[in-house]
Amino acid sequence: MPRNPRTSPAPHSVPFGERALISAIRARAGSGFRGVPLGIGDDCAILRPAPGSEIVVTTDLSLEQVHFRRDWHTPESAGHRCLARGLSDLAAMGARPMAAFLSLSIPSDLISPEDTSRTAGRRKPAKRDVSWTDRFLDGLLQLAAKYKVPLAGGDTAQSPQFDEQGRRQSGLAAADIVLIGQVRRGQALLRSGARPGQVIYVTGSLGGSAAELLALGRDPSQFATLTKGMNYGHPHLFPEPRLRAGEALAARKWARAAIDLSDGLSTDLLHICEASDVAAEIDEAALPIHPLARQAEHDGWIPSALGLALHGGEDYELLFTANRSVRIPRSIAGVSIHPIGLIQSRRQRHPMMVMNTPAGKHIPVEAGGWEHFTR
Amino acid sequence: MPRNPRTSPAPHSVPFGERALISAIRARAGSGFRGVPLGIGDDCAILRPAPGSEIVVTTDLSLEQVHFRRDWHTPESAGHRCLARGLSDLAAMGARPMAAFLSLSIPSDLISPEDTSRTAGRRKPAKRDVSWTDRFLDGLLQLAAKYKVPLAGGDTAQSPQFDEQGRRQSGLAAADIVLIGQVRRGQALLRSGARPGQVIYVTGSLGGSAAELLALGRDPSQFATLTKGMNYGHPHLFPEPRLRAGEALAARKWARAAIDLSDGLSTDLLHICEASDVAAEIDEAALPIHPLARQAEHDGWIPSALGLALHGGEDYELLFTANRSVRIPRSIAGVSIHPIGLIQSRRQRHPMMVMNTPAGKHIPVEAGGWEHFTR
Repeated sequence: MPRNPRTSPAPHSVPFGERALISAIRARAGSGFRGVPLGIGDDCAILRPAPGSEIVVTTDLSLEQVHFRRDWHTPESAGHRCLARGLSDLAAMGARPMAAFLSLSIPSDLISPEDTSRTAGRRKPAKRDVSWTDRFLDGLLQLAAKYKVPLAGGDTAQSPQFDEQGRRQSGLAAADIVLIGQVRRGQALLRSGARPGQVIYVTGSLGGSAAELLALGRDPSQFATLTKGMNYGHPHLFPEPRLRAGEALAARKWARAAIDLSDGLSTDLLHICEASDVAAEIDEAALPIHPLARQAEHDGWIPSALGLALHGGEDYELLFTANRSVRIPRSIAGVSIHPIGLIQSRRQRHPMMVMNTPAGKHIPVEAGGWEHFTR
Repeated sequence: MPRNPRTSPAPHSVPFGERALISAIRARAGSGFRGVPLGIGDDCAILRPAPGSEIVVTTDLSLEQVHFRRDWHTPESAGHRCLARGLSDLAAMGARPMAAFLSLSIPSDLISPEDTSRTAGRRKPAKRDVSWTDRFLDGLLQLAAKYKVPLAGGDTAQSPQFDEQGRRQSGLAAADIVLIGQVRRGQALLRSGARPGQVIYVTGSLGGSAAELLALGRDPSQFATLTKGMNYGHPHLFPEPRLRAGEALAARKWARAAIDLSDGLSTDLLHICEASDVAAEIDEAALPIHPLARQAEHDGWIPSALGLALHGGEDYELLFTANRSVRIPRSIAGVSIHPIGLIQSRRQRHPMMVMNTPAGKHIPVEAGGWEHFTR
């Protein structure tokens, strides 16, 4: 019998096959979750939404060298961040997670149970025979367990290690996470629900992720030691999706519009303004700035922590609006809530976003967050 | 204000940004589809399944150099195949598509509106100012339109063009397609429903995709000319997902188990046998062999077309079982249906799959289809 013709230019020999990797993931994914009658192992997974609910769906790519770096992020952090991005999108809709699906493209050296750190230029000894991929899954599945999200399917492939001309090159890891959630029909929080007079709120604090990323770029090992005893958490390496806050904001009908802060306050607030056709005014003094951002300013790394709070991305806090008449608690599920400004009517020849300074000035705010492709 | 710190090692300048690409996709994705109250543009899409239905979900990675090659597959073919893989999984469940989500990682030279074919070693003139990505979307969206599947979301990123040590390398295209379908509660076709005595059927014909792939590897341009007037179709470049057949098999309760032929008959039949804990017997003479596979045998490229029919992957036909008492039509929605064997009880020390030859022999069949990582 002829060998199956291959699209790939050359056969790659690795310790174990796709089916073994899938079996390993399947064994760790758990089963018997409510609302998921069929998980990994058939052509599709089956989900059974509660009566009267709608389904919300989001997908997020996490690419090595774009969204994470092997020399800055531990595999656990890369896995945690991958899932956190998707969960944060569900939080922003006020949805409850039903299931996650993971498509994983992995170079062969990250699958074999030997932790070879190529960035260090030489092989490190294996840690308890676990691979990069095992540890990536550790990080992802630990967060999944916290919020009781089953991994119900996905796909795996070996990252190409040859270019179009057959030249060998580094294979890079890539993950696409799909999150499916449910929300009571008509209760999903949209970006388009902001109206003039509503109060603008954020959860938690801002600029911590950008500050930690800045520090990682300077000296990863030193930073890890530095922050260990400080109780600042790791807003960049291990961001916490605000699922419980989001669910409460939707279920109690407190919020009228919401988005998660993935691109940065200035960019994400612009998304709300554009989708709702409104303007926004925020108060500089009211912005809850993360202590790591303040520390970065104090250490002279950046001229001002405010920049990180306004434009630093990946805080994964929630930005939402609520009617003035609604009494928003100071914290939900242990997460602080801060009023930071007001929604206003959009006016021609006026900036869409303005910041009031403590000195009484009104400064136009431009979107300055992260965007792929343009920088 | 400080610039947002980046995870990526160096800024890349390309003609337009992620938001522009998203806008372009959004404009082409359409809107107002039933069951999709909210598509691209918020943190999540919202889907509204029909009462009494369940949701089925599948994700499929399509990686350049693994699942397609830029010098063998046109961009339209890569886009078509990407969506077809997901739709075929829905067909195998007997589900009706609700929405697709596309996560796309693209190197900068495939986004700019100039078709530079690096494999040819020099720049080709631009074709009507369309990029590789535009043509990829053409192929994907044309198939989506045929089956009225809205593109309701996804993600985009620029493929990394530097390795971990900052050395420049080729960026490769990668796509992850997510398909969400709905099926009446309890009617989804599983791999686990096969029982001894049931008849095994396949739709269409087998081995065509592997034969076309074989031909593409020999001389892409010659093959395109050769097959043009022959009405063989392009089973590899433009496979047709069997959605209507799958839906009929589930809705009329004809089929008891089903899978789509992505890995090859021998591998996919094994999946059915393992999931259902049964054995299978197929008749060599009953296998519908694709004319392209016969031609490959006739031209002396392979010793026998049978190998392609048994082990050639990516035919995307349906393999299903039905009770003997059920009268399965000879064709459904224009697609021929062929009985090819019987499900039997599993017996110790007997092969799980056997093929009866025209000479009356019984040959054990081993799974020989495509699997990543192991070859």
